[in-house]
Amino acid sequence: MAKPFKSIGVIGKYDSPNLSRPLAQVIGFLVRLGHRVVVDNQAAIQLEPHTLKTAPLDEIGKHVDLVVVLGGDGTLLSVARTLAPHNIPLIGVNLGRLGFLTDIPIGEVEATLKTMLDGSYTYDDRTLLDATVMRRRKKVFSTLALNDVVVSRGAMGSMIEFEVYVDGQFAYNLRSDGLIIATPTGSTAYSLSSGGPILHPSLPAIGLVPISPHTLSNRPIVIPSKSLVEVVLIRGANARVNFDVQSHFDLEPDDKVAVKTHEAPIRLLHPHGYDYYAMLREKLHWSAKL
Amino acid sequence: MAKPFKSIGVIGKYDSPNLSRPLAQVIGFLVRLGHRVVVDNQAAIQLEPHTLKTAPLDEIGKHVDLVVVLGGDGTLLSVARTLAPHNIPLIGVNLGRLGFLTDIPIGEVEATLKTMLDGSYTYDDRTLLDATVMRRRKKVFSTLALNDVVVSRGAMGSMIEFEVYVDGQFAYNLRSDGLIIATPTGSTAYSLSSGGPILHPSLPAIGLVPISPHTLSNRPIVIPSKSLVEVVLIRGANARVNFDVQSHFDLEPDDKVAVKTHEAPIRLLHPHGYDYYAMLREKLHWSAKL
Amino acid sequence: MAKPFKSIGVIGKYDSPNLSRPLAQVIGFLVRLGHRVVVDNQAAIQLEPHTLKTAPLDEIGKHVDLVVVLGGDGTLLSVARTLAPHNIPLIGVNLGRLGFLTDIPIGEVEATLKTMLDGSYTYDDRTLLDATVMRRRKKVFSTLALNDVVVSRGAMGSMIEFEVYVDGQFAYNLRSDGLIIATPTGSTAYSLSSGGPILHPSLPAIGLVPISPHTLSNRPIVIPSKSLVEVVLIRGANARVNFDVQSHFDLEPDDKVAVKTHEAPIRLLHPHGYDYYAMLREKLHWSAKL
Amino acid sequence: MAKPFKSIGVIGKYDSPNLSRPLAQVIGFLVRLGHRVVVDNQAAIQLEPHTLKTAPLDEIGKHVDLVVVLGGDGTLLSVARTLAPHNIPLIGVNLGRLGFLTDIPIGEVEATLKTMLDGSYTYDDRTLLDATVMRRRKKVFSTLALNDVVVSRGAMGSMIEFEVYVDGQFAYNLRSDGLIIATPTGSTAYSLSSGGPILHPSLPAIGLVPISPHTLSNRPIVIPSKSLVEVVLIRGANARVNFDVQSHFDLEPDDKVAVKTHEAPIRLLHPHGYDYYAMLREKLHWSAKL
Repeated sequence: MAKPFKSIGVIGKYDSPNLSRPLAQVIGFLVRLGHRVVVDNQAAIQLEPHTLKTAPLDEIGKHVDLVVVLGGDGTLLSVARTLAPHNIPLIGVNLGRLGFLTDIPIGEVEATLKTMLDGSYTYDDRTLLDATVMRRRKKVFSTLALNDVVVSRGAMGSMIEFEVYVDGQFAYNLRSDGLIIATPTGSTAYSLSSGGPILHPSLPAIGLVPISPHTLSNRPIVIPSKSLVEVVLIRGANARVNFDVQSHFDLEPDDKVAVKTHEAPIRLLHPHGYDYYAMLREKLHWSAKL
Repeated sequence: MAKPFKSIGVIGKYDSPNLSRPLAQVIGFLVRLGHRVVVDNQAAIQLEPHTLKTAPLDEIGKHVDLVVVLGGDGTLLSVARTLAPHNIPLIGVNLGRLGFLTDIPIGEVEATLKTMLDGSYTYDDRTLLDATVMRRRKKVFSTLALNDVVVSRGAMGSMIEFEVYVDGQFAYNLRSDGLIIATPTGSTAYSLSSGGPILHPSLPAIGLVPISPHTLSNRPIVIPSKSLVEVVLIRGANARVNFDVQSHFDLEPDDKVAVKTHEAPIRLLHPHGYDYYAMLREKLHWSAKL
Repeated sequence: MAKPFKSIGVIGKYDSPNLSRPLAQVIGFLVRLGHRVVVDNQAAIQLEPHTLKTAPLDEIGKHVDLVVVLGGDGTLLSVARTLAPHNIPLIGVNLGRLGFLTDIPIGEVEATLKTMLDGSYTYDDRTLLDATVMRRRKKVFSTLALNDVVVSRGAMGSMIEFEVYVDGQFAYNLRSDGLIIATPTGSTAYSLSSGGPILHPSLPAIGLVPISPHTLSNRPIVIPSKSLVEVVLIRGANARVNFDVQSHFDLEPDDKVAVKTHEAPIRLLHPHGYDYYAMLREKLHWSAKL
Repeated sequence: MAKPFKSIGVIGKYDSPNLSRPLAQVIGFLVRLGHRVVVDNQAAIQLEPHTLKTAPLDEIGKHVDLVVVLGGDGTLLSVARTLAPHNIPLIGVNLGRLGFLTDIPIGEVEATLKTMLDGSYTYDDRTLLDATVMRRRKKVFSTLALNDVVVSRGAMGSMIEFEVYVDGQFAYNLRSDGLIIATPTGSTAYSLSSGGPILHPSLPAIGLVPISPHTLSNRPIVIPSKSLVEVVLIRGANARVNFDVQSHFDLEPDDKVAVKTHEAPIRLLHPHGYDYYAMLREKLHWSAKL
């Protein structure tokens, strides 16, 4: 059988002082297996002198069949947002504690990668959100998010007020610290801390989770992923919208944040035996009985 | 255009002292419009002497193209569970306050019904749950639920312990007062009181909501409607499972409650202009600002 | 300095198969230290033939200066309820995992007890609740609770409706699965699972925590411990009130459950260095970061 | 009987366009009753030419026996924080919807004030928090709060990490959006939106309520009002502390926010018949059944 992944991009958490060794290890291993390797040029700075091909992150998607991400969930979020247009599957290798998304421990990386690169893996496709900020009917900002789009109060401490529309239909008006619009992937992140439900990754859904809502009966709502969600800021000095806590845009009253599911999901590859519920139990300490 | 609904069943809340007048009104109106009417035989007891065709509720489904339910949400739940095998659409007429499911006020029933019976309506299809109790590998009970299947402690006040499996995969072990397995329709009922999210009726989903969980990090999970959920009772004197708070079955340790989505949904007809979010706002008092 | 505790009662978890060894160990140790020992007569059944003085639990309070409880939190709750009228301090020795109340591990029991019996300990006084059920103006039941008094639905699965009065003033009407009236001690038990706050043991307070409330804006309230709380059952077949999940009484509509703080608290002795927050962190897994 | 309040300060919500008429009405009424009136000099700008005595808000406390506040809860919070050192009782007159604190509607102001000024009233004493920010062992900021002291993330959207100490004892480390330290008065404000309990005004308590906590088992804790609470910022760009959402201070890592109950409470006067629970029911829509 032909190897499914000839050319592999390797991307690491730039600012980690612990990246250089595992990065060199993974690259060396992939080269020995006969794969073409392209290294993210910022991560490559951490390598000893080498002759590897390097490219900026947003170029790598054009050159490879697979990307291996070394880092934590935050690194994978960032990579996924950038590579989403290229339909490249991702494998997440965790350098520290396992994450919700990065499920291969660095200590087992060689054996696990070998098996997966031989074609033995499972996968799940994670939806991204496609968010646009409209101001006076003009698009003023646009980006993708794998976890969540969060409209929230600024630093001044007072609530914001906004209206939520779903598929053009008025849903509700709310004063609160903000609103989290989360994918299933994001449902175990900020959304969970704010009282939102866990959404299974295969559920075609978007969660709308209020942050410290003034109306006590306003509760999280889960809607189909094909919905168009629009949040119109009514009041709120210093309000803003942020995306995966990685980029943000300052909002003015009457701005509209329009969010829909991005047409192409990102594919995460897992070793056989990957178990979503086992990951939940470990990360959320469910085995832990009082 | 041919009238879409030639034969119409009329069902009422039996134990309501206020049923006889609206029941007679709706029946008279339908007869004048030229529909064949079959009256639920228990509700018919409340009528003056008449020559109408009557039948037991579980027979009506074989004779009619549509059923009009007079009562509250509880009445509609009961009718839906019984008629589910027959693929008969339902219209809910509320005799008191509007419900989540019964959205036509009795005061507007004639004008609204006339328009709908002329073919002008919208609809949504609500999934039901198909629940089976297995004891020592044998099926000992089976029923349908439109809102929820609830495994819970009995009267003795102490927690029960159970294991949850999804599609054969172990999800978690929990000690709690119980577990609510809810449809989107049930997500605004008991599930909501216990901290579960609201699930849009068109979301193909099942909610798993713990009741007073001992493990504080155990949170509501929403999974695809095609999932098989199995709850195995580990410990719990007097535990039981109930269905829409309308029927129940006593559980013993090692009993397994298996729940999946019933193959056929029940169709609810609404007048044009029906607005799910408006209903939520009214029922949950969201317009009410502090 | 005179030893503060000449005569010591020893009480164990009757139904534990693991009681006999630690029971004999603790008794032997106390006798060697020169204390008079009185053993609970039910626990004494687990001992080899002996010449120790034994007495029923409710008699022991008249004979001793201190009681050592071997078991878990449930055992200590039970002992505290019985001994409350006698003003006898308690020491809790845990035979398994440490509890919220039983904070001396059996493995360290001799060294720890010796230091404490020499007079080196801290203590905290825990309030109990004094609950009375009134039916047609007559007292029909009365008992004490160290954790909580819980008015709740019975096994039939439907909500109960009740009214709450504080110091004779109407507070609210609620439909729900029930209401937890908790002491600070009980605030880390059932109350916490149902969304109630943790109340520091030295706070003179009572918590009122609804269980799965139908009115979503009904939230836990904390009131002064000197308050009189009255709960009047309005509707609810099979409703009941239970006390520390150890005894219960069946309620009828119009029954009133009156709850106030018992005049005398129970004193728990702890080794020096006892740290309430450390106990919370360990029991609630707060050190556990996701 | 001598009138208890000879000299009365009148204070209004400066930026309200609707202040001038009710301000003139209340002043005229008090003058006609024979009271000496001192008007807040900023509010006085809204009056027609007059010969009334005016003074800045922080001077008024030296001149009067009582202050009448016209506005909403926010205005009363602001006045209370400024007047706290002067031991002057307050009466809150609400110009719009009734508030949690301002319980006299403007439409009934004359009859109600007359009765109260004749000596017929009830009162409750509300504790304030005394907060100090320490940086490298130096006090860099200090103020009072009637509702809450809130340590929270800044605008950048990422969590902060902090440690909480109570009376010098380490309580917990938490990553979250922030922490609310609330008085009973503040327990029905931001604290409630973030899942905190309602604390009866007469409870000598402080609530510690996490905002969107990363550790799901971290729950609100209520501690005695005599406690010293210290929050040490561990990590968090742009973190800040705010006080009643009215003033704030930017924090740096290692800054410590020390909070204790202010020695003197502020006294709120109410007309006879004031009912705390009735106010809760109305403000929280508890009469509203689903």
